[in-house]
This record gives sequence, C-alpha cells and structure tokens, in this order.
Amino acid sequence: MTRAKPAPQHADQAAGGANPQWGGRFAAGPAEIMRRINASIDVDRRLWAEDIAGSQAHCDMLVAQHILSPEDGAAITRGLAQIRTEIEAGHFVFSDVNEDIHMNVEARLADLIGPAAGRLHTARSRNDQVATDLKLWLRAAIDRLDSALREFQRVLLDRAEAEAGTVMPGFTHLQIAQPVTFGHHLMAYVEMAGRDRGRFGDCRRRLNESPLGAAALAGTSFPIDRAATAAALGFDRPAANSLDAVSDRDFAVEFLAAAALAGAHLSRFAEEIVIWCSDAYGFIALSDAFTTGSSIMPQKRNPDAAELVRAKTGRLNGALVALLTVIKGLPLAYGKDLQEDKAPVFEAAAALELGLAATIGMVRDLQPDRARMREAAGRGYATATDLADWLVRVAGLPFRQAHHATGRIVQRAEALGRGLAELPLAELQQVEPAITAAIYDVLDPERSVNSRTSLGGTAPERVRMAVAAARKKYLG
Amino acid sequence: MTRAKPAPQHADQAAGGANPQWGGRFAAGPAEIMRRINASIDVDRRLWAEDIAGSQAHCDMLVAQHILSPEDGAAITRGLAQIRTEIEAGHFVFSDVNEDIHMNVEARLADLIGPAAGRLHTARSRNDQVATDLKLWLRAAIDRLDSALREFQRVLLDRAEAEAGTVMPGFTHLQIAQPVTFGHHLMAYVEMAGRDRGRFGDCRRRLNESPLGAAALAGTSFPIDRAATAAALGFDRPAANSLDAVSDRDFAVEFLAAAALAGAHLSRFAEEIVIWCSDAYGFIALSDAFTTGSSIMPQKRNPDAAELVRAKTGRLNGALVALLTVIKGLPLAYGKDLQEDKAPVFEAAAALELGLAATIGMVRDLQPDRARMREAAGRGYATATDLADWLVRVAGLPFRQAHHATGRIVQRAEALGRGLAELPLAELQQVEPAITAAIYDVLDPERSVNSRTSLGGTAPERVRMAVAAARKKYLG
Amino acid sequence: MTRAKPAPQHADQAAGGANPQWGGRFAAGPAEIMRRINASIDVDRRLWAEDIAGSQAHCDMLVAQHILSPEDGAAITRGLAQIRTEIEAGHFVFSDVNEDIHMNVEARLADLIGPAAGRLHTARSRNDQVATDLKLWLRAAIDRLDSALREFQRVLLDRAEAEAGTVMPGFTHLQIAQPVTFGHHLMAYVEMAGRDRGRFGDCRRRLNESPLGAAALAGTSFPIDRAATAAALGFDRPAANSLDAVSDRDFAVEFLAAAALAGAHLSRFAEEIVIWCSDAYGFIALSDAFTTGSSIMPQKRNPDAAELVRAKTGRLNGALVALLTVIKGLPLAYGKDLQEDKAPVFEAAAALELGLAATIGMVRDLQPDRARMREAAGRGYATATDLADWLVRVAGLPFRQAHHATGRIVQRAEALGRGLAELPLAELQQVEPAITAAIYDVLDPERSVNSRTSLGGTAPERVRMAVAAARKKYLG
Amino acid sequence: MTRAKPAPQHADQAAGGANPQWGGRFAAGPAEIMRRINASIDVDRRLWAEDIAGSQAHCDMLVAQHILSPEDGAAITRGLAQIRTEIEAGHFVFSDVNEDIHMNVEARLADLIGPAAGRLHTARSRNDQVATDLKLWLRAAIDRLDSALREFQRVLLDRAEAEAGTVMPGFTHLQIAQPVTFGHHLMAYVEMAGRDRGRFGDCRRRLNESPLGAAALAGTSFPIDRAATAAALGFDRPAANSLDAVSDRDFAVEFLAAAALAGAHLSRFAEEIVIWCSDAYGFIALSDAFTTGSSIMPQKRNPDAAELVRAKTGRLNGALVALLTVIKGLPLAYGKDLQEDKAPVFEAAAALELGLAATIGMVRDLQPDRARMREAAGRGYATATDLADWLVRVAGLPFRQAHHATGRIVQRAEALGRGLAELPLAELQQVEPAITAAIYDVLDPERSVNSRTSLGGTAPERVRMAVAAARKKYLG
Repeated sequence: MTRAKPAPQHADQAAGGANPQWGGRFAAGPAEIMRRINASIDVDRRLWAEDIAGSQAHCDMLVAQHILSPEDGAAITRGLAQIRTEIEAGHFVFSDVNEDIHMNVEARLADLIGPAAGRLHTARSRNDQVATDLKLWLRAAIDRLDSALREFQRVLLDRAEAEAGTVMPGFTHLQIAQPVTFGHHLMAYVEMAGRDRGRFGDCRRRLNESPLGAAALAGTSFPIDRAATAAALGFDRPAANSLDAVSDRDFAVEFLAAAALAGAHLSRFAEEIVIWCSDAYGFIALSDAFTTGSSIMPQKRNPDAAELVRAKTGRLNGALVALLTVIKGLPLAYGKDLQEDKAPVFEAAAALELGLAATIGMVRDLQPDRARMREAAGRGYATATDLADWLVRVAGLPFRQAHHATGRIVQRAEALGRGLAELPLAELQQVEPAITAAIYDVLDPERSVNSRTSLGGTAPERVRMAVAAARKKYLG
Repeated sequence: MTRAKPAPQHADQAAGGANPQWGGRFAAGPAEIMRRINASIDVDRRLWAEDIAGSQAHCDMLVAQHILSPEDGAAITRGLAQIRTEIEAGHFVFSDVNEDIHMNVEARLADLIGPAAGRLHTARSRNDQVATDLKLWLRAAIDRLDSALREFQRVLLDRAEAEAGTVMPGFTHLQIAQPVTFGHHLMAYVEMAGRDRGRFGDCRRRLNESPLGAAALAGTSFPIDRAATAAALGFDRPAANSLDAVSDRDFAVEFLAAAALAGAHLSRFAEEIVIWCSDAYGFIALSDAFTTGSSIMPQKRNPDAAELVRAKTGRLNGALVALLTVIKGLPLAYGKDLQEDKAPVFEAAAALELGLAATIGMVRDLQPDRARMREAAGRGYATATDLADWLVRVAGLPFRQAHHATGRIVQRAEALGRGLAELPLAELQQVEPAITAAIYDVLDPERSVNSRTSLGGTAPERVRMAVAAARKKYLG
Repeated sequence: MTRAKPAPQHADQAAGGANPQWGGRFAAGPAEIMRRINASIDVDRRLWAEDIAGSQAHCDMLVAQHILSPEDGAAITRGLAQIRTEIEAGHFVFSDVNEDIHMNVEARLADLIGPAAGRLHTARSRNDQVATDLKLWLRAAIDRLDSALREFQRVLLDRAEAEAGTVMPGFTHLQIAQPVTFGHHLMAYVEMAGRDRGRFGDCRRRLNESPLGAAALAGTSFPIDRAATAAALGFDRPAANSLDAVSDRDFAVEFLAAAALAGAHLSRFAEEIVIWCSDAYGFIALSDAFTTGSSIMPQKRNPDAAELVRAKTGRLNGALVALLTVIKGLPLAYGKDLQEDKAPVFEAAAALELGLAATIGMVRDLQPDRARMREAAGRGYATATDLADWLVRVAGLPFRQAHHATGRIVQRAEALGRGLAELPLAELQQVEPAITAAIYDVLDPERSVNSRTSLGGTAPERVRMAVAAARKKYLG
Repeated sequence: MTRAKPAPQHADQAAGGANPQWGGRFAAGPAEIMRRINASIDVDRRLWAEDIAGSQAHCDMLVAQHILSPEDGAAITRGLAQIRTEIEAGHFVFSDVNEDIHMNVEARLADLIGPAAGRLHTARSRNDQVATDLKLWLRAAIDRLDSALREFQRVLLDRAEAEAGTVMPGFTHLQIAQPVTFGHHLMAYVEMAGRDRGRFGDCRRRLNESPLGAAALAGTSFPIDRAATAAALGFDRPAANSLDAVSDRDFAVEFLAAAALAGAHLSRFAEEIVIWCSDAYGFIALSDAFTTGSSIMPQKRNPDAAELVRAKTGRLNGALVALLTVIKGLPLAYGKDLQEDKAPVFEAAAALELGLAATIGMVRDLQPDRARMREAAGRGYATATDLADWLVRVAGLPFRQAHHATGRIVQRAEALGRGLAELPLAELQQVEPAITAAIYDVLDPERSVNSRTSLGGTAPERVRMAVAAARKKYLG
C-alpha cells in the first residue's frame, strides 16, 4: 500500500491560526474552516420534506423486500413522522455539526428510535439520496412556476381581450413602425410564457427518473426494488445507470436555462413598462402599489418593481453560469463540487417566482392611457407601409418601387412638417401619379390596424381569435 | 411634427476622420464605420440556402394567392434557382454593400430578372425573413447533431458491450470508491447523450413554427396563406403572434443551452480521458491520431484532442451568455441587437459538432489497459463497502454499526500496509467478532462487481441488459 | 514501463469513417477530425508579426550568448525578414498542415535558409512562444483601445463644453428627476472612459513581463539571457516563474474583463441614444450615416449603430465567460485548453474597437434638439427638489418635513393638472404657510441647474470647470 | 400635465389575490409582492457600519458648513452612536417596512432624537449614500482579501523553500514533461496570488473616490464640502461627476472580475490537490481535517475541501455575470436595477474568503510523499528534453534534428520497455552516432533539475533565489 501518510495536525492550526498578522475571520483553525466550507445545512435544509419523503419510500421498500424488519420499519416511520412534525412546528434544531440535511435527519432519528435508525441507510448513499431530494424539490418548483406562468397568461389574456381594439404604435428599433393594438402586443407575451411552460414541462418530464438505489455509484448487492421507490415518489421510472444517476445534474442546469430565458422575457416586458411609464411616453401608469417615491425628489413615482424584475435576469443568468462552471470537466461519479448545485437552483427559483408575481401584479395593475397611445400611433408616419402596400395592391407597383415612392413622400411630409394624411393629393401625385384620393383611406391608424387580418396579425378581430385560441390551448 | 432634424455630415468625418493622433483603423469616416458594424453578410451568408428556400416558398404562395402573377412567379423561381447554382458553384459575389444575405440575394435577383424581383418582397419583411432563415438553419443543425449524438451512443454501446466485464475502480471525489466495470462507466455517457438528444428534439419541436407572414411586426393586409408557406418549409404551423414571431429568439437560446450542456458532458469525458491517459493512471492509450507531440519534449504523446474538447465548453458557455445578454431588456418587436444572434449560434454549433466528432473518434480509438484497470480496482480498499454490506446482510448489524466497524478495519489495514483481503481473520475478528472466513468472498473486485445486480448497477449481466435496452431505445 | 500500448488505426477510420448512417461532415477519419480540432492557424495567424518579432529577439539573444553562431543568426534574421515581407505582401501561404503560426513560420524559414532554421528553437518552446506572442498582441491592442478611448473622451469633452448650458431633464428610474445639463450628462461618460483607460493601463502594466525563456515549463540549461529578450521586446522584466509563465492567461482574462466593462458603458450610452432618438423623446437626431432604413417601412430611420453597440455587450460578456470557463480547474503547466484563449481575445478586441468607433461617430454626429430637451425639463415636477431645498434653506424646515410638504404640493399640482410654477401662491401656502413668493425663483429649470454648484454638480460653470480639469487629466 | 392617472387598487388584489387556483406564495396582494421584491434590508443590513460612518461624516460636514446647527449635529452624533451600540449588541430590530439599511437607521434615529433626525438627509440622497456605503464595504473586503492572499503567499513561500529540492514530474497536458521541483511548482501560485493582489489593489485605488454629495444625481445647491466628507471617510477625493457617482458600479464589477480570476487560480490548485491525492498519484496526503469520509464507503478520505474550492469558481463566475447583466443597457442615472449589485458582491467576497482560507489550510496541511514524486519524475521519459539539449549543446546538432533523434530514441525505449537511462549506449548510438557515455549524466532527474538555472527556472538554487525575491517583494 503506497498511500502517503496523512499529515498530523499542526499545533498552531489546532490552536486556531497562530499568525497574528492575519487575524480576523481567517484566524479559524482547520477544523473550523472545514466546517464552514463543508457544511451545507444552511442551504440544503430547504430539502427537509423531500429528504423525509425519500427516506420513507426507501424504508417501505426495504421492509417489502425483507431487508428491514417490519418492526424496524415501523420505528423508522414513526420517527420520520415525528421529525416532520418537529420541523413544521419550527422546533427542530438544524446543526452544522451534522453538516447536511441527510445527517441532521438521521441523527435526530437515532435520538428518537435508537439503533434501528442505523438500518435506514442500508443499500443507499447520500449520493443517490441528495440527487433524489433535489429532483423532488425541483419538480415541485416547476409545478409552482407552471401555475404562475399560467396565471401570467390568464391576466395577459384578460387584458388583451379588453384592449384588442386599443390602437398604439408598434415599434421596431424603438422607432414607430406601424400601428398595432395593445391587446396584440400583450399577446406576444402569452406566446413567450407558453414556450416557457413548455420548457419547464420538458425539464420536468426528463428529470422524472429516480436516482434512488444507485447507492454510492455502483448499485447495490441488496435485493432492492428501485421501481417501487420510484413509483412511491412519483417518478416515472428508475434512472438507468447508477454512475450517471449520482453524478447527473442536467436537470438543474436545464431548469436554470429555462429560468434564465423566462427571466429574459420578463426583462423585456419590464423594459417596456419602464419606457411606457416615462413622462415622454405616458402610455401607462402604475399605481402606488408598484412604484416607490424618492427620498429627495418628492414627486417621483418610480417603477421600481419593473426595474427589479429587469435586474433579476442578472441573478438568473449568473445562476446558470455558476452551475455550468461547476460541472465543467468533472470526472464521474459524484464529486463534492456538486454540492454547489443547490444555491443557484434555490436562488433562481426564488428570483423567478418573485419576478413573475411582480409582473402579474403589474399587468393587473397598469392603467393604459389610450388617448396617448392613439395619439402616438398617429405620429411617426406609422401608416407609410399601408401607403406602400396600397401602391402595390391597387396601383400594381412592384413592392420595391412602391417602397421608394413612399420614402420620397415621407421625406416631403417631413420637410413640410406634416403627417401623411395631412399631405394634399397633389403633393402625393407629384411623387407617384398613380395615387388617387382613395389613398387617404389607408392612412388612418384604425384602418391600418383593421386591415392586418393575416393569421397572427394585429387586426382586432384577429386578436380576439388569438385570445380565444390561447385560452383553449393554455388555460383549457 | 416634432422630429429633430438629422445632422449634416461633418466635413472632417466625410474626409475620413480628421484626428491625426487617432489614425489606423479608427480613421474611417462614419459611412465606413457604419458599414463595418452594420454589415452582417460575413456571418449570415451561411444562411443562403435557407434564404432561397424561404423566398421560393413565399413566391409560390404569393402566386397561389393571386398576389403575384404566374409570370412573375416563374421569373423569380428561375432567378432563385440560378442564384442557388451560382452560390453552389462558388461564383456568387457576396458584397457587404448589400449588407446582408437577404439583400444580396434580392439584388442579384434584380440583376437576373429585372423589376419583377421587386415584387418578391410583397407582404414580407426582413424581420420575418431572417427569423425564418435562422430557424431553418438551426433545424438542420439539430438534425446533424442528433445524428452525431446517436453515433456517439452507438460507439459507446459497442465498446460498453465489449467491456461489460472489464473491472476498473469506480471513483467518487477521484478517490477509489468501489469496483465497477468499464462498460458500466461508458454507459453513463449513453444516458447523458440520450438526454442531450431529448433536449435538442424538444428545441426542434418548439421552434418549428413559421415566422413567415408576420411581416415587419404587425402582419399584413395582403391575403396571404401562412399555413401554405409553413407547410412548404416543413414547419408544423405558423407562429401565432406576429410581434412575437419577429422578436423571438428563444429557439436560439434554447439551442445554445442544450449545446452548452452537451458540451459539459463532453468535457467530463474529456477530463477522464486526460486523467486516464496520464502516466500514473495508464488506464487507456490513444493512438497518434488523437495525440500530438511536443516541440521540445520528443517523448510526449499529448491528449490534445481531449483537452480541446474540454476547452470547447468555454466557447459554448460564452455563446449562451452572449445571446442571453443580448436579449435582456429588449423592447418589442425587432431590434437590430438581434443581428448578434447568429455568430454565437454558428460558433456553438460548429464547436459542438467538432467536439462530438473528436470524442466519437477517441471512443473508437482508445485502447484500455485492462490489467492496469484491474490492478487499480484492487487498491484503495475498494471493497470496503462490500465488507460493510456483508456485516449488514450476513451478520445482521445495523448499517451504521457495520460502517463503523469497516472503518476501523480499513484503519488497521492501512497501519499494516495491507489490502483488506490480505488481513488475517484474527485481525478482522478483533474489530468485529461476528466476522467469519466467508467474508473473504466479498473482498474480491470481480465478486464485488458481480454482486451489484440492482437495476442500473455495475454487474456485467446488468450492463449487458442495459446495453440491449439502450440499443432499442436510442438506436432502434 | 507500464504505459498502455497505443491503439492501431482502425481500418474503417483510415477509410474515412465507415458508418453510412452517419455521413456528412462527421464522415471524416480521425486524422481529418484531429486536424480540424487541433489546427489553430485560422485564428492565430493574426499573431504573425508578434511571432516574427519574438523569434528575432530570441535569435539575437542566442547569438549574443554564443548559443547560435553569427552566421546562423544572420541567416535566420534574413529569413525572418523575408517571411515578414511575404506576409505583408499577401504572398505567404498559411497552411493548417503546419497547424499554428509558429510552425508555419518555422517551416517557411527552413524552406528559405535550410537546416539553420532548426537551431532557432533552441532553448525555447511553443509554450513560452505563444504566451509571448499573445502578450505582445494584447499590448498593442490595449494601446489602440487607449487611443480610441482617449478620442472618445475628446469628442465627449468638445460636445460637453458646447452643451454645458443646455438644460435637459435628469432621470432616475427613467423618470424625470431634476434638471441637468446635457454637457454634464456627457461628462459622466468621460469618467467611465477614464476608468476604462485606467483598467486597460493596469492590465498592460501587469502583463508586461516576458515569458520567453520559460521554455516548455521548467526553464532551460542553455545560458540564455532572459533580460535581453525581455528588453528587446519592450517588456519590463522576465516573468519570475517558468511554470507560471507558460500557463498564465491572467492577462487575457483581465483584458476581457476590462473590455466587458467598457462595453457595458457603451451599452448604457447606446440605450440612451435609442431612447432619445425615439419619437416620444426626440432629444437628439442621428444622421443617415448612423441610421438605416427599413425594407418594409420606408419612413424609418433606425438607430442601428446604437443597437449594435448595445448588443456587443453580449459578445464581450460571452468572451469573458468563455475564457474563465476554459481556465477553471486546469492543472499546471501548459494544457492545450489554453489554445482556446485567442478567439475570445481577438473577437472581444474587435467588438470593442468597432463599438467605440461607432460610438465616437455617433457622439460627433448627433444633433440635440435643445428645445425639446428644455421643454421636457420643465415637465414632471423636475424642480420639486428645489422647492424642498428652499423650504430647508430659507424656511428652516427639517429635510424630511420639507420633503413631505413638497409631496403634498406636487399632488395638488397633479390634481389641478398644472406645473409647480403655475400653482398660485395661495395653493402653496395652504400646504406650507412658510412659503413666500420668493419660491417661484427656484421653480425654473435654468435657475435650478445654475444653483447646483457643488463639486461635480450640474451647474454650467461647474461643468465647464470639469471639462477643463478633465482635458488636463485625460488629454494633457 | 399629461401624466396617465395611477390605477386604483383592484378589490381582489387588496383582498390578497383572489384566484383560488393560483394560491400558495403567489396569493399575496400587490403590497406584499412589492414589499418582497423591493425590500433589500435582508441583504444590505451588512452595510450598517458603513452607513453609520457615512452619516456621521455627512453630519460633521453639515455642521462645519453651518447647514446644520451644532445642537442638531450633536443629537445626530449621539443617536448614531446609540444605534451602532444597539446593532453591535444584537438588539437592533431590522425591519423590512423600512425597506433598506438607510431608512432603518434613519427611522431609529428619529425614534431616538426626534425631528432633528430629519435634518440629516439635507443635501444627500439614498443614491449617493448607498454608493458610498458599498464602496466602503468593498474597500474593507479588499483589505481582508489582500491579507488573506498575502498569507497564502507566505505559506506557499515557506513550503516552497522547504521543498526547493524536492523533485517531482512537471506536467504539460497532464503528461510527464520534465522534472521540476515541488518548490518551483508552488512558487507559480505565489506569482498568481501576487497578480491577484495587484488587481485588488488597483480596484481599491480606482474606487476610492467619494460619491457623497452627488445627492440624487445633480449635485446640490447647499454649500457642502465634498472634500471634507471624502477625507473623513478615507477617500482620496470626491468623484468628479455627480451623475456618474450615483450610477457607477464599475468598482463592484472590477472587484467581481478580480475575484473570479483569483477563484480560477484556486481552482487550478484545487484540481492539482484532487489529482495528487488520488491513489494513482499519491503525491500528497491531506489530514482528516481537510477530508471527509463517506456514508457508504468507510475507507474514503475525500478531498472535499479542495473540490469545494474548485466549485466556488461557479459562484464567482456567476456573480460576475450577474452584475454585468444587470448594468447592461441601463440609462443614467440611478435605476433600481442597481440594488441587485449587493448580493453578488457579498456572495463572491464570502466565497473567495472561504476558498482562500481553505486553500491556505490545505497548503499548510498537505504532506508530500517525496518518494512517490521522485519515482514519478523518473518515469515518462521526463529527461528526453535533456537528451535533446545535450545533442544540441555537446554534439552541435540543430535543435530540430536533435528533437527527431530523441524521438526515435524514446520510441526505441518504449519498444524495449525501458527508461532512457536504462538503454545501452549502443542502442543510443544506433540512432545518433554522436552520442557518448557522457549522455547518461543528463538523464538523471536530479541533474536535469539542477541544470535548469535560467532565470525563473526550476533549479533548486534558482527556486531559493526566487523565494527570497518574492519574500521581499510580497511580504517585505
């Protein structure tokens, strides 16, 4: 055996860090430093319910497979129930001496039922246990997020229906492009939320394989029934490979990626709220509930909630990068690096849940100023495309030629400081003789919007159809 | 009209940058700088085939809907075919005067067929066009990656079957934990690749909605048939909301996230190859085909391919962060920021394809040194768990008690500089009197491996069953 | 010797990939795949000038130290000069058979001068060579960026001086907060660029230690003079540790971090340009040089350059993440992973240089609409703070009480639909009896701005002092 | 005044979320959601000492400038001292009703001293206050980290000196390359830590400008003395531009970038520890203090601390990405997005401090197995470069020719299963006739190491010189 001998404790380390120049928080001795870096109980205590559920399922299976006696099984069951009660009541003392949630539960179980507690860990390991716990937690988090995204869609659909005919400018490059309806705009977010739900759903489906029974990494020689524990915990099946089962954190990365993208969607909406609330736009107002005042500028009604939602993308992108960094280049199977999976997951879930709640609140809360929206839709030559399309459709010009003619008309209007509809027919005909007085029909924002009846287009009737279809698809 | 007047050209700018101290590449005038930052043709020329296919489908639909005359349609079709031929032959001159792939194709079409070319852009916009192109490109990239991942699984399965009985140490924390089989270890990557294929497949399914017909952002007043273009291009349906259709890059982010995770899997395997190839391990050898020599150390056979695969995670994570950063806080609908979607997508796809090809090559190429693997599996007290399990199963000790007894036996063995199987029975019984000579049966790595017959476990028979199941599931 | 035997070539691999199902770009045999993943010449050819300079310095030192004969030294010098000429003239054929820039140069040198070329690599390695090349390249890139940032400051200072008295609304939360001057606003970016220059300068100073002579990793037994090559290449000193010298990429990460932050600054300015150019704000106009039209909306003047500058943060953040990911967990010394350092560095440098050039162009180009800025500064109760400060300063109220009184006055003004200056004195006194007619003096935006004379404040005289100080500090 | 009217509270929202399907944590009404997303006290309470210090300096200056009466100043001073005492004693009740640390302190001050508390906020804003607090906190964190990095260097230097003659293999690509000394290897990390200290020091120097007095964004009309508050708080000078002062978070990004890179260095060392601790290498052993056992594998001594240090790069990279994402595209001046700066900063500082403490502990704790190191240095043809260099130096071959001859000799040795020093002279001469028996002198690892006397090289004497120079430079 060629193993190098472990080092003895250095005296000065045992004494708590002897270097007087270096004091403060680094003065701790090795044991204290190790405890601080190694203990995860402050983070993973959130997994307590999942840990108990997993232990109970494991216990039941061990009894059914005659690996554990019914008596020991009953004691363990009783003990776990007691621990659950204690935690729910807030009486349980989590201790970082017992480093993680698994050891905290097992240590208390030993207090409560004695040596039988030591039989629970037969044919399992913390490696399969923690993977199971985190999957169960994420599954529930996904279910909560799905509900929240569904509610986000519901409030968007309600408002979109009510605003299906509210004309506002549609923007590209934040320049006024063409008139759209506010309802149509809101429906874009229904689609985004729908894809978010799809991604979380796919993640849930893919993660729903049970690691339990993989043991440390190699499986076990005990005659366990992995299908039974999988079923008891609501998994679709046991994970197929024990090495993979304990070292896989794909589900967490996939969750974080879906969360980052959902957060990006919220950031886009938040940016719009911030811009729309600004004095120059004034398209919407938020109530005091979602704004704050200023310590020095008494008049301010700041859209803090929207800004914070926008900023949460930082936390979400950071959490994703954190875990992708952690798993890079890790050899199989379990490494302690994987303990760093939980903080990003918990933080991202909390950030997204909160961001969604705030966004839902703002969607319900915001009051559109329809007059200002309509007024803005009449500016910026927003119906120039309608003019060009008229030239194609009615006058038969090739699109590119119609496009050029329209550009010259807009230049003329700009030079005269007028809107398109305010240009005399003679001015229009000077650029393109084929134009007739019928052109004025298409230069009105309402007519423009009403004409865009193509599937997915902004015409109010189309928007109402889209609302109905989305209700059926997403809320049905 | 309150628009601020556009600025006149500054004389010194028109002269090409007047500041003599600041020369070099910054000396360019505004037009040149704008051309350089704005032109995307160097990047998006890769979309040429998709752009032509999209235009053809749009043209056919316009004719079918009587928006375009059959004659114009035929001319456009002829022109597009000609352009395709020119590009395939390498004769096409891409020009950044025509800034992007769409304008390059349209400009050439105008050369070839005259003004009718100008009718092709009726009822569409570059905004829906580029989204369509990129989706088509990504769909094909996903199909290529799915083939590559399938091939990765195939070569892993072949080798796993051949090595189902090859004993090696299983590691946790890179410490020898328990004996496993090399086949079992390889099968873990089959599972990872299976999930990767699942994620890419979900991404493909979700992206497969056609943006075409969303036009600039609002839909169109022309009587187009979006279902027809969607079907012609192999999309499942048209995208439901035109604002969303032109501003959505979810599909690219989702692709990049799936690619980053697939790359992380490859990095784990690459790390193992690097470690296994090192002199101290010597578990495998790569041929000259996948190693390189040194300019200064003639004896080196460096696993460069594995290191480069491992490093590609950098590019993949970076690409994901790049696009997530770009879309943060973008108001609807299209913004030019979205032009920065293509470089990360193309680079990530290329990095992952190359990384997969190299990994597949290495899996086929590597030669295991079974003797060294087996020898290592006999070290490090790898069967200590088997001893503990025996104490539970045969001697009836609670797991925790068995665990403690085993720990003391290992300490004793370390102190004596012996392996577990080399300890006399008396030594063992001194720690735990319940031990009998039957214990030696479980201290052998082969027996250990053979005993782990739980579902997903490392027993050779289990590995062969897993190979058969995976062949059916993934290659069937 | 226990090394595992290298694998023989598989017949099917030698045949170029035998699997017919898997064709396409994966059909390449191992040699081809290895060439593709291993060759870096497409990327690192940009280092040609640095590579030649490094070789020349090394050659000169070898001659001076009598390690190389003067004749061989002269031949090498002649050959390197010839290669430089060939590359500058565009006649040099870069080949990926010679995998990287070092081997391309050395191979051509052997063509030109025969076996003496083989003496150049004495006492060095590609490991120290490539680190030297990249440091030299980055040093020059930093110098270019410093010039560009200085020019950015110069154009900002010129405009800030001209607009020192231009009143505009200052925003917090994109809500109108207090009047500021446009010059004061622009000066904020002078500070940011100043810090950027500081960071790049620190990076340059820290990187300026020569790796040359570290050889592969351990130094060399030849009597080299590292101080001489360091001096010849403009380094401050040789790097102190040979293992560190070849495995260190701190300088590249530090560069990328500085670039990402500089890019973030540009993104903030770009966002402001996009918002200010929008119809609702209309604070500035960009000329046609920095805007583009629309393929479907003829009237658009899109701020594409600003959007692209904003989007470059994606590329910059991605490049930083890429390299941080690459170096995570790399054991010493050189690993091939480090080859993935160059693409992010080159791409980030190019993105930032281009973003700076475009931003400088926009600063010179933009035309402020002073009337709209002034008009906006009069809205949104922007002088409410001045009212509150008056109550503190003149009426002696505690700030918090003044703040509350002001809030009630703003509410009253909102209810009446008036600005603060339009409220009758009686209304004001109803809220706070201490108010006198003198209050109206501070409710005027110009007076407000003029009063903010604290150091760094927005008063025009302060802004002009700041411009003068900054000129001296940054351009002096 | 065109501002849209704020929305009335929805009845169902006021009732706490009426949607029964959506219950749980989303059931909260808007006020509760806003409180949850807006309150930062749970995070920013860590700034209490800095907040009080900043308030005291502001108070003193207001008195000195006759803006505040001496009596009010004395009351505020007394109140702040009382609050400091309460917090230190753990009696202070932080409340999220008072949303942040500033309002918590101010509210308590009002309790303690009455209306005079309301005068403290004269001529300042939470915007300049929070920037000041965070800078002060970071400055102290940097000082702590500098001490820790210095201590890291100190323990490395002590061990490097002791191991200056300990021969081990130097690796490139994790392949044995050339013999080096363990001391030389450790010294590489002294250089890395030195650069880290340099970066943190530059960050500290650059951040050390006082935001105080920038007020909300525009400066103030009160006759404040910014130089006085700057000096009182240890800043070098006031920040030059008030808009920049309140919206700048460069210092936090720069800190996070320096932390990420320092973390990357630790991850490299951690990876080496993990590899060196593995059974196959056995170069070092860690004591029980820095390893943990296994719940299922009693024999394991897992290098958990090293793995956790390696994994902290995830948190550090994530924190950097988080803040870079947050600041992207933020218009000036302050936006609430900036509130998301503190969590990444606090988390990164804690992760790096802990990672450093654990690494320092491991450096002190690890016991090298010099015999195994030396044995490994004799394997892998580690002295092949010495052979090649001998051919150049003694036999006068061009390096490339010597390199090729050496390669053939290594092949021959591999084929014969021998080390280089075990090859008979005849074998060597068959490849290269110029070889004499003197060659064997350079094939010994000790001689190899001793010969590498170039500056920065691995020769023990050089390492000792490097240790002495580094002590002077870094610890002097």
